[in-house]
Formats: sequence, structure tokens, C-alpha cells
Amino acid sequence: MAALRFDADDERYIRELSEYVAIPSVSRDGDPAVMRRAAQWLAARLDFARPRIVETRGFPVVVGQWMGRPQAPTVLVYGHIDVQPTGDIDEWLTPPFEATRVTGPDGEDRLRGRGVTDDKGPSYIAIETCRQFLAQEGALPLNVKFLFECEEEIGSPHLADFVHAHAEELGADLVISADGAMWRTDEPSLSIASKGLLALDIEVEGPNRDLHSGRYGGTVANPIHALVELLATLHHPDGRIAVEGFDDGVPALSDEERNEIEAVPFSEEAYRADLGVDQTHGEPGLGTLARLWTRPTLEINGIRGGGSYTVIPHVASAHLTCRLVAGQHPDAVYEAIVRHVNAHIPRGTRVGISREGGSVPAYAIDRDHPAITAATAALAEVYPNERVLLARIGGTLPATTLFEDALGAKTLFFSFAYADELHHAPNEFLRVRRLREGMRAWEILLRLLGDGEHRLAQRAREEAIA
Amino acid sequence: MAALRFDADDERYIRELSEYVAIPSVSRDGDPAVMRRAAQWLAARLDFARPRIVETRGFPVVVGQWMGRPQAPTVLVYGHIDVQPTGDIDEWLTPPFEATRVTGPDGEDRLRGRGVTDDKGPSYIAIETCRQFLAQEGALPLNVKFLFECEEEIGSPHLADFVHAHAEELGADLVISADGAMWRTDEPSLSIASKGLLALDIEVEGPNRDLHSGRYGGTVANPIHALVELLATLHHPDGRIAVEGFDDGVPALSDEERNEIEAVPFSEEAYRADLGVDQTHGEPGLGTLARLWTRPTLEINGIRGGGSYTVIPHVASAHLTCRLVAGQHPDAVYEAIVRHVNAHIPRGTRVGISREGGSVPAYAIDRDHPAITAATAALAEVYPNERVLLARIGGTLPATTLFEDALGAKTLFFSFAYADELHHAPNEFLRVRRLREGMRAWEILLRLLGDGEHRLAQRAREEAIA
Repeated sequence: MAALRFDADDERYIRELSEYVAIPSVSRDGDPAVMRRAAQWLAARLDFARPRIVETRGFPVVVGQWMGRPQAPTVLVYGHIDVQPTGDIDEWLTPPFEATRVTGPDGEDRLRGRGVTDDKGPSYIAIETCRQFLAQEGALPLNVKFLFECEEEIGSPHLADFVHAHAEELGADLVISADGAMWRTDEPSLSIASKGLLALDIEVEGPNRDLHSGRYGGTVANPIHALVELLATLHHPDGRIAVEGFDDGVPALSDEERNEIEAVPFSEEAYRADLGVDQTHGEPGLGTLARLWTRPTLEINGIRGGGSYTVIPHVASAHLTCRLVAGQHPDAVYEAIVRHVNAHIPRGTRVGISREGGSVPAYAIDRDHPAITAATAALAEVYPNERVLLARIGGTLPATTLFEDALGAKTLFFSFAYADELHHAPNEFLRVRRLREGMRAWEILLRLLGDGEHRLAQRAREEAIA
Repeated sequence: MAALRFDADDERYIRELSEYVAIPSVSRDGDPAVMRRAAQWLAARLDFARPRIVETRGFPVVVGQWMGRPQAPTVLVYGHIDVQPTGDIDEWLTPPFEATRVTGPDGEDRLRGRGVTDDKGPSYIAIETCRQFLAQEGALPLNVKFLFECEEEIGSPHLADFVHAHAEELGADLVISADGAMWRTDEPSLSIASKGLLALDIEVEGPNRDLHSGRYGGTVANPIHALVELLATLHHPDGRIAVEGFDDGVPALSDEERNEIEAVPFSEEAYRADLGVDQTHGEPGLGTLARLWTRPTLEINGIRGGGSYTVIPHVASAHLTCRLVAGQHPDAVYEAIVRHVNAHIPRGTRVGISREGGSVPAYAIDRDHPAITAATAALAEVYPNERVLLARIGGTLPATTLFEDALGAKTLFFSFAYADELHHAPNEFLRVRRLREGMRAWEILLRLLGDGEHRLAQRAREEAIA
């Protein structure tokens, strides 16, 4: 198979990616001007694909398409432009929006910066590969459309409207997501399932104003006391979720699934060491991998109230998210949580619960889908000494269910992030070698999907009929 | 008794007090330049008393003295220059550092602004009264010293060193505190006891970094889950404090005390209505007043961790304070809490507990102390139609115990704040009428203490011998 020539070193790739990281496209409470600047940067990289920045009711999306192979299948490349908040800025070893090349404790070169691995680097890899096809061969091996959004990290609240309204323009036989992550560094992997997401806020109100703790203390319910009492009822001390009805509809882990998961090489000890904890914690009777791959979660992500002074605050609140698995419907899970909360309201307080937009159910792609076989082959060629693992991820890609509904297309996750690269945390990084490995893998994948056009097209036709 | 002439309206008082409020002397994480500016403003008002701004290892103190009555007793007027943080700025109806005159729902004129009632207004009243003695009579009726600190709202961490080092200079027969508050607006009151204070922080650590809730959720202990579990063990659901040994040494409420408290006119219904709660909450078997006046508290003042995004934070923390009553020693209470926390550390986490400086035991002054009888008479003259109530306060004045230890002097609380004036909360205010009422009362108090010099001086001598 003819091969593209990629650069002999990573200098240009790093320089260009650093420009992109330098635009602080934090979507939570984001600055529209900054989001637009990031979208413009990306659109400029898509100059071969007639890029357009399209407004939504939130932040814009960037779309583009190269349709020079009328007989070939069409793929839609998906990614996101926005990034997570930095978190505590003091925990960053280098400024989050100045991509910095450093050597990791594993001896490997890293590029550190917010968004570098989620999802700016992986998006850059996909786009640069396509650019090189055009530059070196004058054409791509199949038709490629692009869709990059600016709201993935806040649950893609406006993507669904956009995709439904532009379903014809975005239509494709397969979506390839540049978002996601390989779950560990010593085995290339493909994800065949992702979890759904439900987000909600709980607010406890007590007195009608903040009170001086000396003047009122001990006589009125403190909303922080009430909130911690309430939240403490959500889990049993052994790790089980205590919300009745929370996992209704979730099938018990079959022996076959259990065996399959137990056969995956996995070191609990290395996992603990990496996280710096002396024990893992979760539902009893399951190993870490089974917990991560098969079980829903209910996490308190944030809590706040009052301050470090002698106050009884009038309000305290928490942000919670659930990762959902197949069998759970977001609406039913939310209702179960509402019932639980209403049954546990502490004395003397009022409790409000509100649901965030953008919840999604879990998602899966068959392991014999042609996209999975092509991607497996591409990874096997780039990583000849390693076996390609079919994994599931605990994370959520809200777009997958949407693409299935609106475009009738499955989504292949093909990201060159690793799960250990501090996504969403301070000091997020991307391993530098993955830039060129990723480009080579994307090249092979696109060639295989182009070569195998009949199989992909046939599969798409079959699915349309079924 | 000759009377000072105070202004016919409040215009000048409000103008001057507004200048003082405009200096945002927030001591928590305070700006030294701002604190100094506030100290300078106050020192300028003490021009009749040879004012000095004296450095400490923290923010400065302002001292001064007028000693023109060699045969008369000496009082030390205490107050504080610093104020609480504003809290959520969005909850302020007018800018916190622009004192604004408004009409309250009770129809009374109010001055709204941070610190206006705690403790800038009450301090101003005391100083302005003294200024008028000098201006109109050329002398005060007794010797007056002044001590204003800039760290009261953060537990007076450097006041003790200062007072001990300057005990001779500050020596007095009585301390009169311009800080404190009358506990309600329909009866003038004097406080004969205040609670002690102990502050501490609890921090729960889990994994060594913030984690993506999709990539790690359900497999590792979440520090917020652990913190809420831990904090929920501090109280029983019925309101009792669940920390073993917490109130060791606290005598049970005697029948006499209970009867005395129950005889105080107090409307639970009005209390609930004022706070906007449908029930009060606290230790079972006691009314609100008994809870407030006689029982120690353990309040969670602040809690924080993570944020409103899909994170498992690596750390979560809470700030707690205890209001202590007679019989409790801060060290013993802290040790009881440490034992409780260590016995309840949730699985898979590390818990740190640290004590804030500046803890103080509870304080009391005898109800037949000459300062109490003089103050009662002064209030009776200003409020002829109301009975003067001897109350206790749930709040803490760290300076009281210190003055007793270092100067051998009891402290009379003589503030013209009311407890409902949103101390420590957004929209703090002072009733405007209290400016002139307070000045008149201070005038009478100082005259009585000067007239009754033999009784105060004699009492001071008796105490020195005992």
C-alpha cells in the first residue's frame, strides 16, 4: 500500500498544535470570542474541505467536506474544539495554555497543555493526515466530511438540533470520532462501547440569609449539614449505590462477559500505584475492570457552600453525574434519584434538584462491524508487536447516539489519546510519538475504508434496510 | 446630669461613618495597605487621645489614651477595624463598601454596608461620644484608653502577644467593648456571657490527581463522597452532636437556669418567620433560647471540592467551628473531634485535620458587677419604656479572656448593633437611630463610671486581691 511521507520530526506538528492549544477554548462559562477564535483556527486547517463556521444557539460548529470520490463511501470525522476548565491553576507545572514539551517519568516526550489530548491533538492528527493525502496524492481515498463542535465538554447542548437540521449535509456511512482515548499505553485498543451521561444539581436551602454562627448556631438547620447528610445516603459504605431503582434494567454480568473481562491483562496493583491509593473502591464483588466497563456510576463531582469563616450559609449545593450503561434510560435514572432525594430531605431544609441538559444513554458498536475490522488492521500495522484490544470506555461521547439517530451511522472511536494523559485534570498531556503514529494509522484506516468500499457501503445498505 | 449636645440630625455621622465603611478592611486574606488605610482613618478620629498605629506580626492595632482624670478610674475601649468578607457579591442589593441609606421593612432608616454594624458603626459611636466630651466640656469624666485591632474577624491571632507585651500601657479597671450586639430590637440588653471558639479544617485526599469521572468513575474512592460520609457522622439526625467527649465538663442546665431562660419573652414563631424556616433545629429537649445561650455548637461553615464538571477531585475540604460554653476547654474539644474523625475515616482516603490559631474558651461577667449596673442604668435612661435584659450571646469575643488574663479587667459589652442586622452576611446594616441613642448611652455610662469611681475602683481592688 502506497504510504504518505510524514515529517521526519515533530517540530512542525508541535508548533501548529501549540497554536491551537494557546486559544483557551474552555466552553463552561466560555467567552464567545475565544470559542470563535478556536473555531477559526480549526477551519483554516480544513482549507481543502470548503470549511464553514456555522452558528448554533450556543457556540458555533465547524463543518467541511471533500467529496472527490463519487463512487466511494463517505466518512464523517467528528471531534471537539472546546476544552475543560483548567481546575486549580496552582496545580499546573507549566501554564495550561502554553503547550510545553517535557520528558515524562516514562522517559517519553510529552506535550503538556489544556486540551492537548482532549481533543485538540487527536483532532489535529486526523486533519493533518487528510491534508497530506491532498498534498501528496491530490485526493483522499474516500469522501470525508468534518464536524467539530465547541460544546462537547458541557454535554453538547446544541449539537442535536444542528445535526438533525443538517442531516443531509452531514450524511455518511460511518462516523469516525477523533475523540475518545485508548485506555492504556501498552496495548492499542478500540472501544466498542461507551457509557451514557446524566448530570444534575442538588441545592439545599435553609434560612433566608447567611447567618452569623455565633448568633444563630445550634438553633437552625445548617444547609451544609443537611447536604452532607443527604449525599451520604446515596451510597452504601461498601460502595454500592443506594438509590432504589437506579440500575433497574441493567442485566447482571454474564459468566461469559465476566470471563472475557477477567482474561484482559490488568494489574490492580499498577492501577493503585498510578493513582496513589492504597485500595480501589467500588461495588463489591467486581474487579476494577468490570466496575469500569460494565457498571453505572453516581459521582458527586462538586460540592460547595459557605466559606472559611464563622457563617451558617443559607444554601449549599452539589453537582452530580451518572455514567449509564446499556439498559438504563436517563429519564428513569433521574426519576429514581429524585424519589430518593425527596425521601431523604433533612429536617428544616428545602431541597431542590435540577437536571442539566444533554443527557445521553449508553452506546455500543458491534465487534464485527467493518469499521472495527478496518481499524483493527490499521492499528496492527502501526503497532505490529502488540495485540489490538477491544475495550469499552467508562466515558461518554454524547454525539454517538445522536449520529445513530440522525444519520443512521455508527461511530468508530479512533483517538490517539491515552487514558492516563490527565484528561480534565491539571497537567493534561499528549505523548509526542502519538502524533506520527496516529497519522500513519489514520492513513491506513482511510485507505482500508476506501479499498473496502463495497464492504462498508454494503454494510451501510444492509443497516438501512434492517 | 449635664448632657452633651449631639447633632440634631444624623447627616454628619452618616457621612463620616460612610468614609470608614468605604475602606474595604476585610481581614481574611486582607490587603495590608487597605488595613493600614482603615487604621489611619480610625487613628485620625482619636486625635484627642494621642493615637498610635502599632505594628504586630499581622495587621496593626490602633491605641490611644486620654488620662486627664488622675483620681478617676480608667476604662479601655475595645473595638475592631476589620470586617468579614462580603460573601456572594451578587446577593448585595447595594455595593458593600458604599454605605447606603435605605428604609427597612420595619419602616426604620438603615445604613447598609459591610462592617457598618460589625464593628465600624458601634466603634464610631464610642469615639464620637468621647470627642464631644472633649469638644463641649474639655474633659472626659474618667480616663479612657483605646484599643482597636484589625484581626477580630480572623480570630485575633496577634492580639494576645500585643496585649501581654503592652499590659502596663493598656492597664484599666474595666474594658468596654464596642463590639457585640444587642440580641433583639424591642428590649435593650446587656450580655453577661459569650461563647468560646475553636476553628478547624478537615481535608480528605483520594487519588493523586483530579480524575475524569468517565475514565475512573466507580473504581476509586471519591474524596467528596468520603467527606460527606465523614461529616454526616458529626451530628445525629435529631440535632445532637455525635462526637464523643465533645461536651464533657459542661454542667447540665439547672432548673433555675431553665426557668430563668423560659421566663424571657421569646417568640419561636417570630424567630422562624424572621429566618424563613418552618422549624428550628438543634438539640432535642431544649428551646431555641436555651440552645443559643447554654449549649455548645459544632458547625460546618464551609465545604468545597471539585466543580460542576465531570471530575473526581483528588481533594475535598471543610471548615468547621465550635462555639464553646463554660466547662469546655478548646484543646479537649479539639482532641475529641480528632478522635472522632480518626475513628470514621472512609475507605480508600486519607484525612487531614488542622486547627486554626486563636481559639478561646467561653467568658462571663457577674450580673452584679458595677459595670453591669452602670450600663443597665444608662440603657434604662435612653430606653425609659423598656426593661433592660441581661442576656448571653452565642458569639465569641476572643479579646475578653485575654483582657481578663493580661489586664485583670472584666469586659462590658456595650455595642449598639442589633443581632438581626445581617452580621457576616450580605446586606449588613445598622439602624440609623442607634447612632444618637448609642452616643447618649455612652455619655451616661461614662459619667456613671466616673461618678461611681469609688465603687468601680474598689471593685477593681477587691478583684486584684481575690
